[in-house]
Amino acid sequence: MAKIELKKIDTRAPKEVDKKETKEKLEKILVELDALQNLLYAESKHSILIVIQGMDASGKDGAIRNVFGKLNPQGVVVQSFKEPTKEELAHDFLWRVHLHAPAKGMIQIFNRSQYEDILITRIHKWCDNKTAAKRMKAINDFEKLLEEHNDTKILKFYLHVSPEEQHDRLEERINDRTKQWKYNENDFKEAKFWDDYMKMYEDCFENCNDVPWTIVPSDQNWYKEFIIAAAVKATLEKLNMRFPGLKK
Amino acid sequence: MAKIELKKIDTRAPKEVDKKETKEKLEKILVELDALQNLLYAESKHSILIVIQGMDASGKDGAIRNVFGKLNPQGVVVQSFKEPTKEELAHDFLWRVHLHAPAKGMIQIFNRSQYEDILITRIHKWCDNKTAAKRMKAINDFEKLLEEHNDTKILKFYLHVSPEEQHDRLEERINDRTKQWKYNENDFKEAKFWDDYMKMYEDCFENCNDVPWTIVPSDQNWYKEFIIAAAVKATLEKLNMRFPGLKK
Repeated sequence: MAKIELKKIDTRAPKEVDKKETKEKLEKILVELDALQNLLYAESKHSILIVIQGMDASGKDGAIRNVFGKLNPQGVVVQSFKEPTKEELAHDFLWRVHLHAPAKGMIQIFNRSQYEDILITRIHKWCDNKTAAKRMKAINDFEKLLEEHNDTKILKFYLHVSPEEQHDRLEERINDRTKQWKYNENDFKEAKFWDDYMKMYEDCFENCNDVPWTIVPSDQNWYKEFIIAAAVKATLEKLNMRFPGLKK
Repeated sequence: MAKIELKKIDTRAPKEVDKKETKEKLEKILVELDALQNLLYAESKHSILIVIQGMDASGKDGAIRNVFGKLNPQGVVVQSFKEPTKEELAHDFLWRVHLHAPAKGMIQIFNRSQYEDILITRIHKWCDNKTAAKRMKAINDFEKLLEEHNDTKILKFYLHVSPEEQHDRLEERINDRTKQWKYNENDFKEAKFWDDYMKMYEDCFENCNDVPWTIVPSDQNWYKEFIIAAAVKATLEKLNMRFPGLKK
């Protein structure tokens, strides 16, 4: 795909989009998603993998809560990928990810993902360019494996916030007693690498787009949630699912 | 504890309980549960294990969906224990269960559980009384381990339905196109062992009550959901949780 320049992509909703109207649409979509997820689970033919990436405080947790939080928890699994453990590091970088690939009928959400291994790792030079190129190839192959061999539909979302919005949100984490638990002193340190991160993300969109990325303007939560919910709904609808009859 | 006789326990709500009022109370509790769960996750000091047992069609799936379905999916994990796999059978009966013990900050729900190994297994004589007694002891020790060594609060619910109600629900599964996927031809076969199952459950309540069971009248879903939600809320409130401050 053509190289994306994140700086040229707006982090806010287009001006003509009305907030109230969009929120109403979102509520409607969430009701429809609930029915579609029940059908996905009942049919147990396909599975869904949602990859959510974004800078610190780009709203990943909120997106998971507000888009998927009303679905049946029996059919939705969230896995956060944090700093790898010793055991995980003793394997290839996709080992811990594969373990959480969605079973048929399930919606699996990745809060961060295999992509961390070509993002933060490159910023801090734990992974050189040659290794990164090999990893990108391996990620493409891995995503193809899931799609071709277990009927998995993969959706990848990049939550696109401005550095100013991120700064405000990190400040809020320090000042709001109910949010302090989310604050990590490394957050501000990582934020200094903003431009480098943008370059790494652009590289990743360019080279790992066999399963396409959706860049989600995320300075406003209502718009972010609407874009994600609408994309998931459209994907589920295209599966042409049916309730299976009685088992023979 | 004194021997429970399930036949003497009503499967319906007491007559004086008003349906509309109870549903309103439930809605209020669910909002409070959402805040409590956020705090549990933020504090990450305790964890919650919810064990749900009951006959086929006693409403386990519905209870999970309607009591826990509005909580943040990032903090709630559901594990269904079905017929064990070959790998699971190659280990002690608690091995597969331990793997899904809740991490700190999490609510883990077991849809069926370790108790299947002293229920269906005894009905079909795959487990003799001597082995069952040993397993009950092991279950008590296991639950104590989780409570004492990982700050886990365990809540155990038995969804108590009448055989008539079960029969109606199984019939509905056959006749309702959107429910046929839930039907298993073994369900009616197992239902014939009703009295044996009740005895095994009574035996289990008598011997595995270090962590006490709640018998939930479950012929009416609204009452069942209210009882479970209220019990979970009371447990969470007793934990005296606080938002942790900034990490030092």
